[in-house]
Amino acid sequence: MTKKVYEFSEGNKDMRDLLGGKGANLSEMLNMGLRVPPGFTITTKTCIEFFELGGKFPEGLWEEVIEHVSKVEEKTGKKFGDSNNPLLFSVRSGAPVSMPGMMDTVLNLGMNDEVAKGFSKLTNERFVYDAYRRFITMFADVVMGAERKKFDEIYETEKKKDNAKTDPEVSTTALKKIVDSQKGLYKKEVGTDFPMDPYQQLKLAIAAVFNSWNTPRAITYRKIEGIPNEVGTACNIQTMVFGNLGQDSGSGVLFTRNPSNGEKTVIGELLFNAQGEDVVAGLRTPVSLTDLKNDYPKIYNELIENVEKLESHYKDLQDVEFTIEKGTLYLLQTRSGKRTARAAVKCAYDMVQEKLITEKEAVLRIEPRQIEFLLHKSIDPNSGKSPLTKGLPASPGAAIGQVVFVPKEAEEWKASGKKVILVRPETTPEDIAGMVAAEGVLTSRGGMTSHAAIVARGIGKPAIVGCEALHIDLEKEMFSVGDIVINKGDILAIDGLTAEVFVGEVPLIEPKISDEVEIILSWADKYRRLGVWANANDEADATKANLNGAQGIGLARTERMFLGVERVALVREMIMADTREDRQKALDKLLPLQKEDFKGLLRAMNQKPVQIRLLDPPLHEFMPREVDLVTEIFDMEKANEKQEEIEKKKTILNKVRRIQEANPMIGLRACRVGILYPEIYETQAKAIFEAASELKINGYDPKPEIMIPGTITYKELAYLKPYIIKAHKEITQKYGFEIPYKYGTMIEMPRAALTADEMAKECEFFSFGTNDLTQTGLGLSRDDAQGTFLPPYVEKKLLDDDPFQTLDKKGVGQLVKICVKLAKSANPNIKIGICGEHGGDPESIYFFHEAGLDYVSCSPFRIPVARLAAARIALIS
Amino acid sequence: MTKKVYEFSEGNKDMRDLLGGKGANLSEMLNMGLRVPPGFTITTKTCIEFFELGGKFPEGLWEEVIEHVSKVEEKTGKKFGDSNNPLLFSVRSGAPVSMPGMMDTVLNLGMNDEVAKGFSKLTNERFVYDAYRRFITMFADVVMGAERKKFDEIYETEKKKDNAKTDPEVSTTALKKIVDSQKGLYKKEVGTDFPMDPYQQLKLAIAAVFNSWNTPRAITYRKIEGIPNEVGTACNIQTMVFGNLGQDSGSGVLFTRNPSNGEKTVIGELLFNAQGEDVVAGLRTPVSLTDLKNDYPKIYNELIENVEKLESHYKDLQDVEFTIEKGTLYLLQTRSGKRTARAAVKCAYDMVQEKLITEKEAVLRIEPRQIEFLLHKSIDPNSGKSPLTKGLPASPGAAIGQVVFVPKEAEEWKASGKKVILVRPETTPEDIAGMVAAEGVLTSRGGMTSHAAIVARGIGKPAIVGCEALHIDLEKEMFSVGDIVINKGDILAIDGLTAEVFVGEVPLIEPKISDEVEIILSWADKYRRLGVWANANDEADATKANLNGAQGIGLARTERMFLGVERVALVREMIMADTREDRQKALDKLLPLQKEDFKGLLRAMNQKPVQIRLLDPPLHEFMPREVDLVTEIFDMEKANEKQEEIEKKKTILNKVRRIQEANPMIGLRACRVGILYPEIYETQAKAIFEAASELKINGYDPKPEIMIPGTITYKELAYLKPYIIKAHKEITQKYGFEIPYKYGTMIEMPRAALTADEMAKECEFFSFGTNDLTQTGLGLSRDDAQGTFLPPYVEKKLLDDDPFQTLDKKGVGQLVKICVKLAKSANPNIKIGICGEHGGDPESIYFFHEAGLDYVSCSPFRIPVARLAAARIALIS
Repeated sequence: MTKKVYEFSEGNKDMRDLLGGKGANLSEMLNMGLRVPPGFTITTKTCIEFFELGGKFPEGLWEEVIEHVSKVEEKTGKKFGDSNNPLLFSVRSGAPVSMPGMMDTVLNLGMNDEVAKGFSKLTNERFVYDAYRRFITMFADVVMGAERKKFDEIYETEKKKDNAKTDPEVSTTALKKIVDSQKGLYKKEVGTDFPMDPYQQLKLAIAAVFNSWNTPRAITYRKIEGIPNEVGTACNIQTMVFGNLGQDSGSGVLFTRNPSNGEKTVIGELLFNAQGEDVVAGLRTPVSLTDLKNDYPKIYNELIENVEKLESHYKDLQDVEFTIEKGTLYLLQTRSGKRTARAAVKCAYDMVQEKLITEKEAVLRIEPRQIEFLLHKSIDPNSGKSPLTKGLPASPGAAIGQVVFVPKEAEEWKASGKKVILVRPETTPEDIAGMVAAEGVLTSRGGMTSHAAIVARGIGKPAIVGCEALHIDLEKEMFSVGDIVINKGDILAIDGLTAEVFVGEVPLIEPKISDEVEIILSWADKYRRLGVWANANDEADATKANLNGAQGIGLARTERMFLGVERVALVREMIMADTREDRQKALDKLLPLQKEDFKGLLRAMNQKPVQIRLLDPPLHEFMPREVDLVTEIFDMEKANEKQEEIEKKKTILNKVRRIQEANPMIGLRACRVGILYPEIYETQAKAIFEAASELKINGYDPKPEIMIPGTITYKELAYLKPYIIKAHKEITQKYGFEIPYKYGTMIEMPRAALTADEMAKECEFFSFGTNDLTQTGLGLSRDDAQGTFLPPYVEKKLLDDDPFQTLDKKGVGQLVKICVKLAKSANPNIKIGICGEHGGDPESIYFFHEAGLDYVSCSPFRIPVARLAAARIALIS
Repeated sequence: MTKKVYEFSEGNKDMRDLLGGKGANLSEMLNMGLRVPPGFTITTKTCIEFFELGGKFPEGLWEEVIEHVSKVEEKTGKKFGDSNNPLLFSVRSGAPVSMPGMMDTVLNLGMNDEVAKGFSKLTNERFVYDAYRRFITMFADVVMGAERKKFDEIYETEKKKDNAKTDPEVSTTALKKIVDSQKGLYKKEVGTDFPMDPYQQLKLAIAAVFNSWNTPRAITYRKIEGIPNEVGTACNIQTMVFGNLGQDSGSGVLFTRNPSNGEKTVIGELLFNAQGEDVVAGLRTPVSLTDLKNDYPKIYNELIENVEKLESHYKDLQDVEFTIEKGTLYLLQTRSGKRTARAAVKCAYDMVQEKLITEKEAVLRIEPRQIEFLLHKSIDPNSGKSPLTKGLPASPGAAIGQVVFVPKEAEEWKASGKKVILVRPETTPEDIAGMVAAEGVLTSRGGMTSHAAIVARGIGKPAIVGCEALHIDLEKEMFSVGDIVINKGDILAIDGLTAEVFVGEVPLIEPKISDEVEIILSWADKYRRLGVWANANDEADATKANLNGAQGIGLARTERMFLGVERVALVREMIMADTREDRQKALDKLLPLQKEDFKGLLRAMNQKPVQIRLLDPPLHEFMPREVDLVTEIFDMEKANEKQEEIEKKKTILNKVRRIQEANPMIGLRACRVGILYPEIYETQAKAIFEAASELKINGYDPKPEIMIPGTITYKELAYLKPYIIKAHKEITQKYGFEIPYKYGTMIEMPRAALTADEMAKECEFFSFGTNDLTQTGLGLSRDDAQGTFLPPYVEKKLLDDDPFQTLDKKGVGQLVKICVKLAKSANPNIKIGICGEHGGDPESIYFFHEAGLDYVSCSPFRIPVARLAAARIALIS
């Protein structure tokens, strides 16, 4: 039979798949010679077996557990359930991937009426009954699923009656009363007496730890973090040590480096005379490590020595939990610490300098999505506005939105298109979905390691915590700072880096990339296979793209150049033309304007390829809407305006009626317009070649590439090519030299992907237009879906993700794979890129790497993300 | 070296790929002991070699030709180019697949000034110089590409000068003059003297035959008939026999059975003292075989004996060309005769009775598309309208349209959405595209075997030919019958079966299927693997479908039942509802109406499955258009109507604005509506089960199947299933018995096809919605494309066919194949059908058979087509 239970001494840090992160690290710490309370771990495999058996203990498990309890009894000299020298356990989950705050824990297990009496003699009554009431509350809540609030209410009521302001002030008498009342409540709520048998407690607790893997909040967290459900959690059973045995006891957490900015200083918090849960819950504001240093320098030194050892050993920033029991330091947990993007970069860079890790490891230390946070805006310090108040800088980035107090409401407002700031006294795991929906989070309580802070950093939302000046009234849905009152719906701005809160709109500024980021990106560039290009429509965008390291432009949308009053008038002239001649006249006026635009782009990207997509949208996008014209004409008639003017409008109305479409997205647009009116594409091509020629004269090396949008058959490419060649010849003759160029197409329709072998023979490059490929592949109009059925689809989990953010791998991704395979086999020299929104999404980039694409093209500000993501997938695959 | 030339005696009818149809049949006839003028055939392979060499004779070809000329000289005792006893040749193309009228022919080859002189002594001068002038004209036109009109003009001018009314009246002197003038014109037009060397003539003619394979008209014909370009044509060189050597000579064509109605009587036409081309050209109206029987009974009997032998040998209706030279009968060609659908059915049926062919062969004798012609409408004989005139019933079916005289115009009018009748004196191969565009064709000249008649039958257009009462003025674009004048654009109706022409609109009636058709269809049913179901939305459609042999209903569109003023009002009430309760109220009113509809369908299809598709279109299809409401409100304001009424309209306008979409085809529709408002689908399901339950009580055996439209993920099916189950449970409880049903989905989006393995596990059947799958797969909105870019796309050959008529095999077809493979591997019991328009298209049906579908579903009137097509593909694959 497979071994189901491991003593800590039997494990090590590489066994996290089996023992979970917590269990593996407890074993590792023990092996390193650090002081860890003795205990053992039930494996993740056992958890999965448990589920397979429909929630029953696999054969032999309980026997192994009992055997290991005996071993711990031997090591500690204490005895489980022995009132004279009782052994108490903590029972905690521990999945292979860290899921802070998500899994349930039961402390002080083994306590009962007899034990309490005996234990009181060994320690003190107040401490024991405090531990007892904590145990009943946790056990009822976590193990039996009773409503915690009711147990807490008993405590709060008695505390009030007892005139106690803080927890340590609650008297022993009161605590005993609380324990009695809670046992009564337990019976009422659960239906059975509170179990006095420690082994029965343990059995139930183990099952509860396993079951906590499948609570909705755990499932939500895994969904957000992309952790598979089939992993399961281990269960750690560990001897209790007590941080609440007086002022020479305490519980704390620390980071070996600053998780917010990455600086190399141990940063932590602790609460004297408290259990660990008190620190994480954020109910009392903890003190810093400096207090420990001042009061207990020896323990402080031992702690620092231990955690430095841990960091060198793990070669990464560690997040450590410790407890001091009557002056003895115990390490309870170590794990790789969550950190801000800024801290991730600084740590990775510094650790390479310290020769702790290699450049490759440094690159892998930064989650690509994380680097985007560095590129988040911040509030302009020169705005002249004064902050309302300040809190703790829990997660960097600036956010502006309307205040809401209820997490569910944050989701609803978000769904209706609003931006919100979630304001709470503190947050709990139930609030995660609301935090995800909010632009930013602001809490009045808790420290840098509170739930709100950890989650906000994890999901990359700006957050300020512990902002104690806030007086929040959840009933009235308002808060006040002094006499300033902020109601639900008011606009608030927060900056998670400065921790400043502003009322109303404030100007935001663009981020700057630090030298350390630049260096890490340059390391990333060494290892990635995918090229990273940018989508840019003008010189300004192209310049930004260049600064961020773009290797080319993968999409320049020429129609964006048709905007602006003067140009739209010309475009309308072109559309209104009844003959080819009239159309050409309008085009000839557009040509010099387009040429200047192209010059800007090609100049900015000198020597790098620039893929210019010829006219793509349906023509009527440039025309007024039918209903607006009808209204206008009515108004003109009402105002008795000149008949002549009205007739002019009517002419436009007629044209609009003629060209309007039922489904413009899949109507007369893209190359279909080019095929009906080849003079449009020919003129655009001329503008491109002319722009390039003029630049070449001035010493530039322009590399234009012409991209045909919306093709569905290779014949379209063959049909349009001669017009491009004609334009090229004409410009070559005019300037006396030739501009080399490439000819390619967007792959935006399923048929284009499915006939890629034919398409590939007609051109030199493909660029996936994954936005449109998603729209056609899923038959899903983005404009129509995003306001109506797409949010409920994602919410009801009918779709895993918004397919316009992360590529739908199973559907659209399959088209991509089929296309690449067909294309490369028909034309091995073809270059294939992607220029949809997905080009800047790490998950999608991993897929594109594996699908064999040559490059991704994304918004200029997402280029660093793409560079890192491309390196990551190249390094791990 | 491969043999390039075959003597007729060396071939047989099974060598048509190599020798072409004509060559193979000439060989066969010779082998059968029939009298065939000696000759030889150059193979189709040689033709392709010729093209590969860029239009040059392959090595050895010419030597083989010369050798075979000698052999013919031996057989005939005549000599090629010998003025004393000259051998003249006809040189004709002959492709493996018959292409009547499409390929060029040169007659009387070998003629020159010397030969003419000598030959005149053997026959008569008039005949010889008539043959000479024909030869020059044909040679100049066909071989050298000169303008035939100019040569004909010389003839017509001299004929007039000669006061000759008919061709035989033209004098020998005039003919000699004509020959001289034409030789002069030849030199002027071609640039060289008319070639006097017979071998040079032959060499040029062979090249011309090969080259005629690639004339635009030949390419167009092949395109229409779906014949590949790589086949090539053979070239037949055959001793001339002369039908124009006096009144005991003649040329004719005949069918061994009536090609219009299939009756078993030899039907033919001949012209005395004429060459074959005169008969086909339709310039003189020929006499019937009865004249031959009366004047030359012996020849007539020999002819009848010969062709009956041919028919029994070929076991098919034969189209035979013959020439009588001074009382001697020669057979020049035999081939399977083109026939109407009616004739095809009758022949196939009769031949099975005559034990000539098997049932399987009979089924294969009928082109599936052809049977549809039997299902064409005819003009109601009880309309009370009198026909304007009558002609020859060349191709059955009735058509109504506006008169046009120019074929190009027919195409243009068709493109702009008009229906036209093409009226011409006669038609030529250049007119084919115009004939295809027209609803029907009407000519004033020519017989049942004229070009117009043959082509119209081939492409299935109603046609009346030889309508001599018509006086057509092409200049003025009008025609008159007596004093009635019909101008371009006037409405005309024709019935190709009765050959009656009507002015203005006339009522049409539905066709009736004959017993013979029924029997052949029952044979077809034995051999097909594909089921044939019908798309039907109401009891009337379902009844028609049943009569035509539908095995089930593959698509009943429930939204069609929402039409009608009363129901639309209820649907609007449902859409306008702000709460689920209000929506349910409106639905509850719709339920009894829907139930009655479903009862009708299920009753009509008793015992056969009925797949009912739940609500599919976007809701705003039931609402007025925004622009119409705005106009209405303006008008109401102008008319000072009650503010209250105006406000009501404005409420509707606001709702319309809220729900209107940019791209409704790919917006909130189909199952997306069902997922947002599950009460709609639940109510529909209830109506279905209730309808079925009520029928069951009355002794029926209803088989409802519920079809979910527009899915893109299996999760949608899983999400909606409980609502159907709930409805089912409720109705089961109400009636006390259970209605068995199936649950399935449409496959309309590429993603559904690409994830078919997942989808197949959630349901029991798939039905391809190939219309929408084409729209999404090609990113092509049918509504928008068909009026704008789709016609030019097909015209410019950017797409092979209209993808909404014939399935786009390469693109959409690939999705179908991927889907079927994935689905059947994941759920081997799944039934897969198709209910798009393609379900009635033979080409598409062949594809669906090969792709492994279980059934096709099509319009009720197309069911016979589908039954035949399904049998055909099963028999030949």
